[in-house]
Amino acid sequence: MKIKIVFGIQSIICLIVTIAMIFPLITALCYGSNDVKAFLIAIAVGLICSVILFVPVFFSKKKFKHTIGIREGVGVTGFSWIIASAVGALPHYFAGTGNSYADAFFETMSGFTTTGATIMTDIENAPQGILLWRSLTHWMGGMGIIVLSLAVLPFLGLRGIELYKAEVPGVTAEKLTPRLQQTAMRLWIMYVALTLTETIFLFIGGMNLFDAFSHSCSTIATGGFSTKNSSIAYFQSSYIEWVIIIFMFASGINFSLYFLLGAKKFRDFFQDEELKLYALIIFIAVAAISISLYFSGYDFEIRSVIFHVVSVITTTGFITRDYNLWPEFAKCIFLIIMFIGASGGSTGGGFKVSRVIILFRQLGVSIKRLLHPRAVIVPRFNGNVIQQSTLDSATAFFILYMFILMFGTLITSAFGVEILTSFSGILTCLSNVGPGLNSLGPVENFSHLPDAVKWIFSFCMLAGRLELFAVVLLIMPGTYKK
Amino acid sequence: MKIKIVFGIQSIICLIVTIAMIFPLITALCYGSNDVKAFLIAIAVGLICSVILFVPVFFSKKKFKHTIGIREGVGVTGFSWIIASAVGALPHYFAGTGNSYADAFFETMSGFTTTGATIMTDIENAPQGILLWRSLTHWMGGMGIIVLSLAVLPFLGLRGIELYKAEVPGVTAEKLTPRLQQTAMRLWIMYVALTLTETIFLFIGGMNLFDAFSHSCSTIATGGFSTKNSSIAYFQSSYIEWVIIIFMFASGINFSLYFLLGAKKFRDFFQDEELKLYALIIFIAVAAISISLYFSGYDFEIRSVIFHVVSVITTTGFITRDYNLWPEFAKCIFLIIMFIGASGGSTGGGFKVSRVIILFRQLGVSIKRLLHPRAVIVPRFNGNVIQQSTLDSATAFFILYMFILMFGTLITSAFGVEILTSFSGILTCLSNVGPGLNSLGPVENFSHLPDAVKWIFSFCMLAGRLELFAVVLLIMPGTYKK
Repeated sequence: MKIKIVFGIQSIICLIVTIAMIFPLITALCYGSNDVKAFLIAIAVGLICSVILFVPVFFSKKKFKHTIGIREGVGVTGFSWIIASAVGALPHYFAGTGNSYADAFFETMSGFTTTGATIMTDIENAPQGILLWRSLTHWMGGMGIIVLSLAVLPFLGLRGIELYKAEVPGVTAEKLTPRLQQTAMRLWIMYVALTLTETIFLFIGGMNLFDAFSHSCSTIATGGFSTKNSSIAYFQSSYIEWVIIIFMFASGINFSLYFLLGAKKFRDFFQDEELKLYALIIFIAVAAISISLYFSGYDFEIRSVIFHVVSVITTTGFITRDYNLWPEFAKCIFLIIMFIGASGGSTGGGFKVSRVIILFRQLGVSIKRLLHPRAVIVPRFNGNVIQQSTLDSATAFFILYMFILMFGTLITSAFGVEILTSFSGILTCLSNVGPGLNSLGPVENFSHLPDAVKWIFSFCMLAGRLELFAVVLLIMPGTYKK
Repeated sequence: MKIKIVFGIQSIICLIVTIAMIFPLITALCYGSNDVKAFLIAIAVGLICSVILFVPVFFSKKKFKHTIGIREGVGVTGFSWIIASAVGALPHYFAGTGNSYADAFFETMSGFTTTGATIMTDIENAPQGILLWRSLTHWMGGMGIIVLSLAVLPFLGLRGIELYKAEVPGVTAEKLTPRLQQTAMRLWIMYVALTLTETIFLFIGGMNLFDAFSHSCSTIATGGFSTKNSSIAYFQSSYIEWVIIIFMFASGINFSLYFLLGAKKFRDFFQDEELKLYALIIFIAVAAISISLYFSGYDFEIRSVIFHVVSVITTTGFITRDYNLWPEFAKCIFLIIMFIGASGGSTGGGFKVSRVIILFRQLGVSIKRLLHPRAVIVPRFNGNVIQQSTLDSATAFFILYMFILMFGTLITSAFGVEILTSFSGILTCLSNVGPGLNSLGPVENFSHLPDAVKWIFSFCMLAGRLELFAVVLLIMPGTYKK
């Protein structure tokens, strides 16, 4: 691994995060909240870290080569999120969010990975600067600090495609236009446009501008941090709920599909197999949960069911009801869609609908081959034959996902956390959803967990957000060999 | 599917099961227990069923062809277990075991699939005939009714190799000597020898002959039915526990490896990767659980830990302690080894250690390929390159296993069963273990479940025992097309 390149980029990441802290600082000054000092110290420390990280680059005699390989891509991607969270945790740490640096780091990692799991027990009494900072970490994380910084990277003389491959979720990177910088810019514009549109809609619905913007950041990034203790339930508005449902749904769609809309290829858009299955799963989940609630004699509105299904499958994690009180069947469905997650190439997390399609196509082919051993049967996706490398990659991802899920649950249970709670906690973090079940349920928070478990959960959030492989490579010695 | 062949073989299976009922009938007569009448009626009904199943064959004008394909293999395999359980349930039904035919069927399917999950609430007060019948279903199921009847099939003019492929668990069928009938005979002798040896050892340990034989049948088949309410705990003998540990362990080893021992290839035996990993997993599980119990302040003996780890990983399900009271960490380990199961080609169930090896080799290769995209890296098992078809098959098996586990848990939870209990119930049935967790735990039984759930669990036992694919093909319309 060319370690200097990695250091150089970490320095920039650190600087970006530090500069971003200016916005909550201004907010804190405007509201006169008591976190001004915390942000000032954090910015100072952030700048120092940025300079320190730049030292190896500054004293480097060799010029940078114009290519970076998979090792550097992995290093940059993985460390960026760790550095961003480590520095981004400073305001929380200095403002006293939580009880330890582990808490602050957890909260920030949860932000940047757009998970939305929180250790804060009383959100509404937190200072405005901190609340905005949480939403901003979501927002920055949502599109990926790396994609954001693709416009900066060229100044270092680095091609970005390897980073991009490791970064953008899903299996559909090849769909995007090949000119990366232009694509990144387009995605960024789309992202900003979606955020501002939702802010306006929420503002019209009666939210103040601060809440509207914060919740929009959380929605588009499929994060889930709210400025209220009771999340969206606080606003008691079916209009607001519907707006958020629509924008959550939109954020769970592969963003490259919006290019199809832009090019007026409506047919291709609606024919996309992943989009169709994504919508179908939501429909089935809503129907099944509604039937279950009806027969169990619960008093419910269909809107609440839609809200929670979309909130969980898009891995946002906003809440209007405590679904932990719903029947076992409904909770089981939440666990399943928590695992499935949103579409590839969206801001959502989880296993991804496209991978579910690939796995089932693969299974179908295997079964058909049993009956017709000599027939040539190939799995297809959107009409195209799925390449063996894509199949292998999806399979490896599935094995790894299940292994982390199992091993994570085991380790968490070693700290005395009940198995289903451990499982739901690991799953919700790995899928970047937010709330789990039982003592990690919708109306609970993560503060009561031991620090060690918070570090494990933080790792899972990172692993999930970086699609597992980047994190696995990051901890493999082979990555650092010449 | 050549349906007449299937019928013909079902008729024989039915006859074998009916004839086997003579042994518990004799036992019932000897003990003068109140189930004599039940066995007499069951034998009569069994004979009638056997004759009815033979009718299409009798009136067939065409002669049987000398080959059967995968469709017939699947049909014969799948239906054999269903027919055997349907007929084998008759003594239970007429003797009043449980409250319904669903109960009787569950108990028998649990027997033939060597699961060992029971719906009986008071085993010790059940008549001796019924108790022996339970053990016999284990014993017959253990080696496979089909393998047992391979000596009969040639009279029908049928080659058996297709059946054999669908029947013998694991991925190592090619290891066995090609001459199938001879192999089947050898396996059968080995099986009988193991059973009788254990019977003698248990008898020496103070069990009466009835209990010794019953428990030996359960052990070698990795079943788990006991003649006592408190299972092995009843005997309060560390000698008996050690004997059972050793024979459970031996039954969880790939039986074809014993041929290596017979041929004095000790080196090959001990170098087998599956055997090494199987032993290693047991060692790690015992160590981890012991440490966990120690630090949680539990009063325990290491023998109990070894007993339960071996009992669960071999999918036997004998019990000496209520491990449901152990720490969450220990229970989580039990769930994991319940999933892993024993070695391929053993009487044990589960995912199989060999498949775990294949999946991890595949994952390792995928990760290495990321770092070295142009290198040729192939996964190996026992020094041989793993064929792509074996990789695909293991992958498809994993996807299917996880899908059934997930979907089964969902359906079970729809009946109001708590999620972890549902999950452990589906897992224990799919892996043919026996006890689950919580209300399906070691000291509990399955009687309190609704009949519908019992049918679902019966299906899972069948699916697990027939390595999923046979059952999937059985419910696919394509299998029945010409």
